Amino acid sequence: MADETEGLPPRSDFSAWYNEVIRRAEIMDVRYPVKGLYVWYPFGFALRNHTYTLLRNLLNRDHEETLFPLLIPETEFMKEAEHIKGFEDEVYWVTHGGLSPLDVKLALRPTSETAIYPMYALWIRSHADLPLKLYQVVNTFRYETKHTRPLIRLREITSFMESHTVHATWDEANEQVEYELGLSQEFYRDLGVPIIISKRPDWDKFPGADFTMAVDAVMPDGRTLQIGTVHHLGDHFSKTFGITYEDVNGEQQFGSQTCYGISERCIAAVIGVHGDDKGLILPATVAPTQVVIIPVIVGKRGDEILAAVKDLEKELKAAGIRVKTDARDMRPGAKYYHWELHGVPLRVELGPRDLDNKQLVCVNRLGVKTVVPRENAAESVKRLLDEAHDQILERAEDHLESHLMTATTPEECNEKLDGNVVVVHWCGCRECADKLEELTNSSLLGTEVRSQYVKNDEGACIICGKPGKAALVGRSY
Amino acid sequence: MADETEGLPPRSDFSAWYNEVIRRAEIMDVRYPVKGLYVWYPFGFALRNHTYTLLRNLLNRDHEETLFPLLIPETEFMKEAEHIKGFEDEVYWVTHGGLSPLDVKLALRPTSETAIYPMYALWIRSHADLPLKLYQVVNTFRYETKHTRPLIRLREITSFMESHTVHATWDEANEQVEYELGLSQEFYRDLGVPIIISKRPDWDKFPGADFTMAVDAVMPDGRTLQIGTVHHLGDHFSKTFGITYEDVNGEQQFGSQTCYGISERCIAAVIGVHGDDKGLILPATVAPTQVVIIPVIVGKRGDEILAAVKDLEKELKAAGIRVKTDARDMRPGAKYYHWELHGVPLRVELGPRDLDNKQLVCVNRLGVKTVVPRENAAESVKRLLDEAHDQILERAEDHLESHLMTATTPEECNEKLDGNVVVVHWCGCRECADKLEELTNSSLLGTEVRSQYVKNDEGACIICGKPGKAALVGRSY
Repeated sequence: MADETEGLPPRSDFSAWYNEVIRRAEIMDVRYPVKGLYVWYPFGFALRNHTYTLLRNLLNRDHEETLFPLLIPETEFMKEAEHIKGFEDEVYWVTHGGLSPLDVKLALRPTSETAIYPMYALWIRSHADLPLKLYQVVNTFRYETKHTRPLIRLREITSFMESHTVHATWDEANEQVEYELGLSQEFYRDLGVPIIISKRPDWDKFPGADFTMAVDAVMPDGRTLQIGTVHHLGDHFSKTFGITYEDVNGEQQFGSQTCYGISERCIAAVIGVHGDDKGLILPATVAPTQVVIIPVIVGKRGDEILAAVKDLEKELKAAGIRVKTDARDMRPGAKYYHWELHGVPLRVELGPRDLDNKQLVCVNRLGVKTVVPRENAAESVKRLLDEAHDQILERAEDHLESHLMTATTPEECNEKLDGNVVVVHWCGCRECADKLEELTNSSLLGTEVRSQYVKNDEGACIICGKPGKAALVGRSY
Repeated sequence: MADETEGLPPRSDFSAWYNEVIRRAEIMDVRYPVKGLYVWYPFGFALRNHTYTLLRNLLNRDHEETLFPLLIPETEFMKEAEHIKGFEDEVYWVTHGGLSPLDVKLALRPTSETAIYPMYALWIRSHADLPLKLYQVVNTFRYETKHTRPLIRLREITSFMESHTVHATWDEANEQVEYELGLSQEFYRDLGVPIIISKRPDWDKFPGADFTMAVDAVMPDGRTLQIGTVHHLGDHFSKTFGITYEDVNGEQQFGSQTCYGISERCIAAVIGVHGDDKGLILPATVAPTQVVIIPVIVGKRGDEILAAVKDLEKELKAAGIRVKTDARDMRPGAKYYHWELHGVPLRVELGPRDLDNKQLVCVNRLGVKTVVPRENAAESVKRLLDEAHDQILERAEDHLESHLMTATTPEECNEKLDGNVVVVHWCGCRECADKLEELTNSSLLGTEVRSQYVKNDEGACIICGKPGKAALVGRSY
């Protein structure tokens, strides 16, 4: 549905590269006639499905999946004061049903706290009902006035995973926060995307939360992309919505809550972090096609090769590998280009010489070539896919490390922020943060930085010189 | 989350039974604070997921999955005159983003023709792009003013599968209609739900279609439930949205289109058609739990039995069976009641005597008891699940056949419609249909009836006596 006739912009021009690869690799079509709403092409949607299957499998270990309505009555939506303030500028309102105005306006969920918690108040009666851990994958809506961009800043977030848990105590909810952060780590490791976790400053937390932990990736241009948040809600919402339980002593207590969200930005991270000048580089965990087989037909042995390719495809399929054969009558270069653009992790070539030598020539998406015996092909292919995954993770880690800087003065920080993320020391006060942000045109993303790539040490505040702690500074998407 | 303390209403009081079983078997919670919007409990959502996985697997044979935006600009929505007329009373309109009115109002899709077809116009260029066959599973919205009911008549249809195809000619589109009807037959056979296909009268077709084929099930009270439709759209929409292709002769032609829809009413049919006084009866194809193992612990051999049960569970799981063990310390009767209410197809009991005799006592949801050897348990269990499926299909077919009547006068028809569906002969004119509907307080559902249960013969019109064809008359949900 999208043409491949011209070359991609180089990845060093990241913004242009991203927009073009989204189109040419058939992830999304941006021509839908409303700003900020995009159409998933079948290939993009398959990538989306594999990614969310991975996420669901992780969540299903201790959550159950559910589904709540999209429409939230104004009366519920307006109950939590901080929450309203955080969202009032960006909520879409349904005001009419057919030709008649509605009695109560309905919000399109920007997030589902106010849809879910009135039901939690009905469902939770006693400590035996706790913990309650549910999630849903839904479309949510934000009336974005800024520049929109597929998968990154949208008006319809088509694939928002939101988990909502209730616990007996603040500490138990806090353990859940840690657990969800661990899930994020596992999820992004499976996607080969290195992440940095930090605690957002108090003024940047989720409206109605005690605190917010955020997960950031670093894109090739050095800008950060928030690709997950875990909020400790304390009892803000349980007090507003009356989520109480009878404890073991027969007393009524308010539940302590967390929520946790991952949107299709996780796919933007996969695309952005792993690509190259040829197009997508997909981890095998989520690639719609993991292996493409290319019959190399020279001379008269065409039928023989096609039969061998068919056998191989069948064998790999039976082993659970997502494999396609490209037997189209076109020059190999154009085929390679097509599958590289779509990020297919492994290409297997089979020609007359391979047939004679009982071997397969395998080339992974990073260009690493391996010749393996035809016997036990599925096993070898699986091993090569695992190795390819390790290689793209390593490549992404190298990239992240090379874009992580430190700075001790605002000038140094400003200079290094061009294409990088910077770790500074900060005393913790809002004034210093505001000043730093103003001087460097950046955001103080967070403290309590957790990342194998960042030293979480102490030092003099970059602004006031008082004792400070490591803080992450970046320019964000 | 729902209590099971009292008995269900008898299934003979179908409406009361349905509402109660939806709640007690934890399908949906109806207490969400907006009329016609419901919350899926995790158990109901698991049933929903298995059902849609079945449907997706059928569709994926020749369709690709995709996803289009929920919001349709008024400018696109208003392009097809008949289509607007059909939906203007029931469309929800988004008029505000944040605190500002929108320039162009946005409709919440009631169905997606007007969201999808502008993109098809961009995607389709030549005959080589055809046929195009895509589908999506999405939430759609109808501002229902009638009595709402979970899964049957909702304001947010949470799980609408809509397929949209484009073909070079009307005849090829017509072949696709036949193909989709075949898919429906296969899908509902997998759900054990017998169906009747018919062609809706011209005045009852989809707004903008050449004709509409509908799939109906018959509920226990004799009322029909429309659980699928396939529309031949001809070139109505392709002319409106400019979906053209260059044919082999280099001439521009309009595409010919079909669309096909199945909503969560398919789950209402499963619940309605198969239940009994004890609760749900689920086909194993979609049951969240296919087998429940109940350890029968009497005397001192508790540990030994629990270990044997654990082994059995592991073995069945490894064979791909969705199995749970209920080792709760409560009386067996209460356990049986719980799993019967939730429709689990097979209960396996394992006590000291079974251990000694190396056997398992299996009781299916219809009460059929079979003792099988412990050896090769997975194989036996699979066979019993298949047999149970045949039994519930047969039971449903018997029910349908006993509720299918014929009539030759309006009086007879009216009388028999009480609890049944009636086949009459009809000349085909609107006047006679209107008169019959008025006299019998029913709907003329369709002609060209296709069903192994209905004789599609000819005879004198029930109203005017002129030559007529078989037509289905019923009272619908």
